[in-house]
Amino acid sequence: MGRWEPNARERLAEAALELYSERGYEQTTVAEIAKRAGLTERTFFRHYADKREVLFGGSSALQELFVNAVAEAPEPVAPMDAIAAALEAVSKVFDDGRREHSRQRQAVIMANAELQERELIKLASLSAALADALRRRAVTEPAASLTAEAGIAVFKVGFERWIAEAEQRTLSQVTREALAQLKAVTAGR
Amino acid sequence: MGRWEPNARERLAEAALELYSERGYEQTTVAEIAKRAGLTERTFFRHYADKREVLFGGSSALQELFVNAVAEAPEPVAPMDAIAAALEAVSKVFDDGRREHSRQRQAVIMANAELQERELIKLASLSAALADALRRRAVTEPAASLTAEAGIAVFKVGFERWIAEAEQRTLSQVTREALAQLKAVTAGR
Repeated sequence: MGRWEPNARERLAEAALELYSERGYEQTTVAEIAKRAGLTERTFFRHYADKREVLFGGSSALQELFVNAVAEAPEPVAPMDAIAAALEAVSKVFDDGRREHSRQRQAVIMANAELQERELIKLASLSAALADALRRRAVTEPAASLTAEAGIAVFKVGFERWIAEAEQRTLSQVTREALAQLKAVTAGR
Repeated sequence: MGRWEPNARERLAEAALELYSERGYEQTTVAEIAKRAGLTERTFFRHYADKREVLFGGSSALQELFVNAVAEAPEPVAPMDAIAAALEAVSKVFDDGRREHSRQRQAVIMANAELQERELIKLASLSAALADALRRRAVTEPAASLTAEAGIAVFKVGFERWIAEAEQRTLSQVTREALAQLKAVTAGR
């Protein structure tokens, strides 16, 4: 291992997103990302397996946050309330300072089929982890899987709304609205 | 174009699934599929772009069936009822004669990461098409996207149940049960 670089991981992620936005994902090399961040390629590969993983570096932390919030919801709790608590915990992490970054990341992903596939896999993995967390709380099937899928649907729709142009409300607000809408449509309204 | 081969498309699909189940997807070649079906490679490529597409040849018909059922649900209809009607229409197509085929296909897909990605993309595309069909019926956002995602969640969970070992109920029955469960969990029960 080389010498310690302060915030290397974050600097690389920021540099990568800048370059993907400016030049396109396909046209950007790891060497360019490292250079923009003022670091070496060797340092890049200590933090990320490849240039795709830079965009998904936060997904295991996100999954952990979701799963822990489900595990820690106080008893007794209806499955959907445990998911609502998890959505609230996750929403707090995405504060207003992260909105522009999230917008840029989404634009890069939507422009590339391979990145879209990766995003879908991460969401499917998140849904499976949530269903697993619910089963550990004695929620049976198919309720556990359905509640997890419903939670991911709310998260996806809320997140898309949050990063829409000119949207001012917080992720918590738009996610709560999406959850209320899901409850309304499944109730047949 | 060569001479007409009766049911070439179906024969190729059956041969491919047999070989993928026996030897594994990676180990099977297009030449072997064509041979097993008693056809030429040239005929294979008239029907399918590659050996992956053989497994997904039915997805555009499935999407059309879903979207048409949403479009044709009689007015006035709540969005979730339009989706329920679509699930019912689709379920009827997967009769008991297709269960073993569906089981084999699922086993092949679950054994290969690339095929799982493909399946997720097809489901995401189906969800987007359903949301679009609902918007054409004047359902607003985010209700349209949430209802579509909820419908796909019910379909996925119902389908998995239907192909589970020893499951005897029809796809209609298990899908209706999954929808009822989704309504129960989103209502907080």
